[in-house]
Amino acid sequence: GHYLICGFGRVGRNVAEELDATHRPYVVIDVDEERLAAARERQPDLLYLTGDASDDDLLLAADINDAAGVFAVTDDDSRNMMIALTAKQINRATRVVARCLEVRNVPKLRKAGADMVISPDFTGGQRIAAAMLRPGVLSFMDDLVRSETAHRLEEIPVPEGFAPQSVGSLDLPGHDVVLLGIRDHRHFHFNPSPEVMIAGGQVLVVMCAPEARKTVERKILG
Amino acid sequence: GHYLICGFGRVGRNVAEELDATHRPYVVIDVDEERLAAARERQPDLLYLTGDASDDDLLLAADINDAAGVFAVTDDDSRNMMIALTAKQINRATRVVARCLEVRNVPKLRKAGADMVISPDFTGGQRIAAAMLRPGVLSFMDDLVRSETAHRLEEIPVPEGFAPQSVGSLDLPGHDVVLLGIRDHRHFHFNPSPEVMIAGGQVLVVMCAPEARKTVERKILG
Ligand SMILES: [Ca+2]
Ligand SMILES: [Ca+2]
Repeated sequence: GHYLICGFGRVGRNVAEELDATHRPYVVIDVDEERLAAARERQPDLLYLTGDASDDDLLLAADINDAAGVFAVTDDDSRNMMIALTAKQINRATRVVARCLEVRNVPKLRKAGADMVISPDFTGGQRIAAAMLRPGVLSFMDDLVRSETAHRLEEIPVPEGFAPQSVGSLDLPGHDVVLLGIRDHRHFHFNPSPEVMIAGGQVLVVMCAPEARKTVERKILG
Repeated sequence: GHYLICGFGRVGRNVAEELDATHRPYVVIDVDEERLAAARERQPDLLYLTGDASDDDLLLAADINDAAGVFAVTDDDSRNMMIALTAKQINRATRVVARCLEVRNVPKLRKAGADMVISPDFTGGQRIAAAMLRPGVLSFMDDLVRSETAHRLEEIPVPEGFAPQSVGSLDLPGHDVVLLGIRDHRHFHFNPSPEVMIAGGQVLVVMCAPEARKTVERKILG
């Protein structure tokens, strides 16, 4: 499945770069034809449609029925709300992530159908404050998201059919892998002791080198 | 020391909320008198000055010589650059954190004297992509910055006079504390084994409950 990026300002372009980095295909929708033409000059194979992404016809033209996900990232919260609503009406299965400018609009965007709502200016303010007050923690977290780093945060889903096993008996390579916690629907079990049982449907949150992830997966998949 | 928030748009206001949450005093500077008047209506004890924060006189009026830090967070990269430059010229010791709109301006802002540069739209794009592609990791990281959470990321500086001691002999309470790494100037030693020596001037990066931080500090401070 491909992705739809609705809104191609600074935020939308940064989303596109993240998708490019992991070779995921996408179609861009924006009302501003000039902006799109300029973007295609920099990136000749860019797929785009000009118009309002909250319009069914445009979403259908971008093949939303076959899309893995929709990014509602224009610089207007009401527009993003309309895009989320329309996208979910056409294809309930598609994942919608919405950008939110004013934090007070987060609940409305969720209600409109967005699976996740991100507020760059809100998180940005938090990060700017953290850069002043807790600088080391911030750079550590940046290392965690960056994909080319030596150690990164990974989540490893435990398949439904997994025969329950204790953390200790999994025998994770302690030098390369730190098991930070086990996520279970909405609960997060931080720093589980060796006796804690792991069951199918849970997610292991680990910090590890990219190669070590494969080792953990082999242990989980048997 | 107090803080100067230069630029009081959405980002600047979110910075102010973070400072309010930890009871840190600040003065706001913005060119837009109407915006400031509206803000004071919501918050009657708000301290502000109207004008261009890259002007020495205004920074001096906000008592920059006694300030712990300056936030250069207007919505204009050149303005933020001028603020960083002027602030450092007056008070080299004050910490400057700058907002950057276009990622390509980050090096220029650093060169102008900003100790740290944060780009909300860039990080926002990364977060929006992560919300689509790696949702669990994102919510885990949000837990880490949130201060009221049960487990959070902390950095604990090792005092210069600390007599070197191995990780193992520190005997950290394994149930409550995960030592993720040791930071040493620019190097980060991920997941150190028990034999690794800890020395003064390093920083321990740990994940722990707030009370457990005190336990670690007691061990470090002797
Ligand atoms: Ca946009
Ligand atoms: Ca601002």
